[in-house]
Amino acid sequence: MSKTEAGHYFEDFTIGQELRHATPRTVSVGDASLYSALYGTRFALTSSDAFARRLGFARSPIDDLLVFHIVFGKTVPDISLNAIANLGYADCCFLAPVFPGETLSARSEVIGLKENSNKQSGVVYVRTRGFNAEGKEVLTYVRWVMVRKRSPEAPVGEARVPELPKAVAASDLVLPKGIDFSAYDFGEAGAPYHFGDYKAGEKIDHVDGMTVEESDHMLATRLYQNTAKVHFNQYTEGQGRFGRRLIYGGHVISLARALSFNGLANAAMVLAINGGRHVNPLFAGGTVFAWSEVIETAALAGRHDVGALRLRTIATKDLPCEAFPDLDQAGKFPDNVILDLDYWVAVPRR
Amino acid sequence: MSKTEAGHYFEDFTIGQELRHATPRTVSVGDASLYSALYGTRFALTSSDAFARRLGFARSPIDDLLVFHIVFGKTVPDISLNAIANLGYADCCFLAPVFPGETLSARSEVIGLKENSNKQSGVVYVRTRGFNAEGKEVLTYVRWVMVRKRSPEAPVGEARVPELPKAVAASDLVLPKGIDFSAYDFGEAGAPYHFGDYKAGEKIDHVDGMTVEESDHMLATRLYQNTAKVHFNQYTEGQGRFGRRLIYGGHVISLARALSFNGLANAAMVLAINGGRHVNPLFAGGTVFAWSEVIETAALAGRHDVGALRLRTIATKDLPCEAFPDLDQAGKFPDNVILDLDYWVAVPRR
Amino acid sequence: MSKTEAGHYFEDFTIGQELRHATPRTVSVGDASLYSALYGTRFALTSSDAFARRLGFARSPIDDLLVFHIVFGKTVPDISLNAIANLGYADCCFLAPVFPGETLSARSEVIGLKENSNKQSGVVYVRTRGFNAEGKEVLTYVRWVMVRKRSPEAPVGEARVPELPKAVAASDLVLPKGIDFSAYDFGEAGAPYHFGDYKAGEKIDHVDGMTVEESDHMLATRLYQNTAKVHFNQYTEGQGRFGRRLIYGGHVISLARALSFNGLANAAMVLAINGGRHVNPLFAGGTVFAWSEVIETAALAGRHDVGALRLRTIATKDLPCEAFPDLDQAGKFPDNVILDLDYWVAVPRR
Repeated sequence: MSKTEAGHYFEDFTIGQELRHATPRTVSVGDASLYSALYGTRFALTSSDAFARRLGFARSPIDDLLVFHIVFGKTVPDISLNAIANLGYADCCFLAPVFPGETLSARSEVIGLKENSNKQSGVVYVRTRGFNAEGKEVLTYVRWVMVRKRSPEAPVGEARVPELPKAVAASDLVLPKGIDFSAYDFGEAGAPYHFGDYKAGEKIDHVDGMTVEESDHMLATRLYQNTAKVHFNQYTEGQGRFGRRLIYGGHVISLARALSFNGLANAAMVLAINGGRHVNPLFAGGTVFAWSEVIETAALAGRHDVGALRLRTIATKDLPCEAFPDLDQAGKFPDNVILDLDYWVAVPRR
Repeated sequence: MSKTEAGHYFEDFTIGQELRHATPRTVSVGDASLYSALYGTRFALTSSDAFARRLGFARSPIDDLLVFHIVFGKTVPDISLNAIANLGYADCCFLAPVFPGETLSARSEVIGLKENSNKQSGVVYVRTRGFNAEGKEVLTYVRWVMVRKRSPEAPVGEARVPELPKAVAASDLVLPKGIDFSAYDFGEAGAPYHFGDYKAGEKIDHVDGMTVEESDHMLATRLYQNTAKVHFNQYTEGQGRFGRRLIYGGHVISLARALSFNGLANAAMVLAINGGRHVNPLFAGGTVFAWSEVIETAALAGRHDVGALRLRTIATKDLPCEAFPDLDQAGKFPDNVILDLDYWVAVPRR
Repeated sequence: MSKTEAGHYFEDFTIGQELRHATPRTVSVGDASLYSALYGTRFALTSSDAFARRLGFARSPIDDLLVFHIVFGKTVPDISLNAIANLGYADCCFLAPVFPGETLSARSEVIGLKENSNKQSGVVYVRTRGFNAEGKEVLTYVRWVMVRKRSPEAPVGEARVPELPKAVAASDLVLPKGIDFSAYDFGEAGAPYHFGDYKAGEKIDHVDGMTVEESDHMLATRLYQNTAKVHFNQYTEGQGRFGRRLIYGGHVISLARALSFNGLANAAMVLAINGGRHVNPLFAGGTVFAWSEVIETAALAGRHDVGALRLRTIATKDLPCEAFPDLDQAGKFPDNVILDLDYWVAVPRR
């Protein structure tokens, strides 16, 4: 029998199946430095231990999205090695901050399955949970991917598509215990805009653009121990659909988040991701731009120091965003749009 | 009102204006590792904790130039986002070593302003200071940049150009307290040459060359949280003056310093930068070479263990330096020269 | 006298000569993160402190190959700066785990010399030892390189070629004291295959491919403070034999080891390298694949928790390995084969 990991095919999944993903990973200041170097992120909470301590953290937590990428990476060998497409995310909550020295692991449960009508593939829905070494859940999200069948004839169970919330309810957002944003220093953080300064419907062009090189996205994706072949193997991808390596969608999310500092410098933490769609692929050489819209503003129960903004951030390639490129009348994005991300961030009140 | 940072224009600056720069940054061993990987630096003091401890340091300090780049990066959004050119540095002193875990922040004071005769722009002089989280000043320098005016008609104050020293006086150089170079191990450090072996007028070709890739300089410049657009955005720069991304001048300084190990292995610390000029731009694909001249040798008051060399290091692109390429009769550098840096280093005595 | 390091030429070496290599280097979690980002390695022991602690380690050790590369890097200025070719390794043993915070240094002894018949060069054999700051030996290996003569007429001593073992004897393999693999979690590590599942003669295609960019291999090789010119200087190499930068052979070894996770996920530690040959050069843009053969399985004295596999791992460029490309009848490798590595790994028993 081959000892090589071939990944699961659609017919290998069953509703309720538990997948315990391999390779726990201790995160460190080394990972944080690489994350800085890869994206140029400047949010003060993750940049300065001193800043974090004034808010009641022991030190700067690991960037929320770095935690997401590491947990996500672990799921690839079990869930998406034979994926045709990563279709979406939903109901992603960041439940506890992760600090350097903590060890992350991940488990997933299959919560939905639906064969495609051509019987060549099907959609798999999983609820993934990330844990620290003490077993505390730090992250949870649902993802669905289209996965190949090993053989079209293989029998599959009845279709089941989970009901997923359009967005995480503001009342379900979790702030770390004992954290107090009253001491938040807007000057140090780089912009004066507080929670009350943002209104639903407001659009912000993040102005700056960042060009991606092959080496950048591969360094990032390897750092996350993400093994999806399409990101790394030019020999095979050169003969494939695009003729080149595809950039990990999470790399685009992190770029968009880093670019969003210009206009959202006080979006201190990502609390939840309501949904995300990789509208078009990104390849090396492309320059990523982004703009955001405030979808909703929400108070957080019992908190006078901080509120939540629901944002929609659109990332583009080779298209500056001063015109806020978006869905057209027919509900179709321009080809230059690569990401449509709906998420909640915490913004201090003044 | 736009929440996006547009940066200051020339007419926004006033003499005496204090700028408190955003995003404090905790430096870590992760940053030190990246700095190694980006430049291949081999100076023993920053490479080995054990080596540093024998000299009385608690551990290896963060490379002086990494401290400089991080402090410099913080000033970009407030000072040089609308800069046309970075004209020079002067009077830069490293005042205290910075160790992993320390948090750096920066403030600047406007000390000079001079509108250009075309009224399209002007030169801004700032004194920038870097601090650790305890408020101790670790770095100070003057920089001047040519900054666009928002509108040529905008009124500006009277011109004032600060007097700047040609060089930091040897008597103003600062060595960390309690540090003793008597235990310096020349064998471990990689070369036998001590302070007394260097004479004013001596020229050293550093022999080796290092080719720069787009990914390298962008990783570096993002690590420094430097947001100058010209380094990152091929979409925009592709339509600009050079048709490509410009490499951060500080990247060249760090490359030249790393190359200078071959001939100056015992130039253990950079004590001051007297002046620096980015003579020509560097682009990815270029190979950097360097040579140095000893300008002056100076005793340090009360120190028998260490002296100071004033060096001038010239970096070139695609031009080996065995012929010591320099200013011609007309005072002009060859096009392949990219950096002319004048600085003080500490070299142990035997 | 020039202060620049010119490296040793063949006639500068003498049998018994001791070389104390420069620049001790403290390894850190920053180096470990970069190693992850460069190779995407997933072995649980070096990925998770929690996993390592359950086996009795204080935390995750630094990857064995990262230790090798750092020790190797130190020897380059003294041994192979004027090398024409790196001919082989033998008798390499990992003697003690290295943890973040430890400082590595290296010494070599010349154990063999043989002038080539053309008197232009000769082969130098050295025994290199790596030490931590307490003087404990952590690594030992023999390497031989072809080194230029400064002048063909220079007299040299009698030829002496050391006898080298074909392989490290299983009885000489060293496991860290107090380590117990009984608590090894095969699920967390990513594969169920234990020592008893592997049989001599078994071949494993590691399936995945990894494309190498210029920036990747230069970041790696600078991280190791390896100064061999051929890896970094496109200006000079562009005019040389290959017209381009040559990738450090150790980079290929680390890529092959990382790829081998798929099939050898429980090859928890590299215990020894019996021999290695860089069969053909690798250049940026090439995609590396690998396959392995189990050469021998060996019990380890007094250990019921772990055994040793002697592996031969072949790496290729731009050639997937499902056909196990190998030496042909004439004893010649196909041009796409770049590495033939013979080594011992520790694999837990169940």
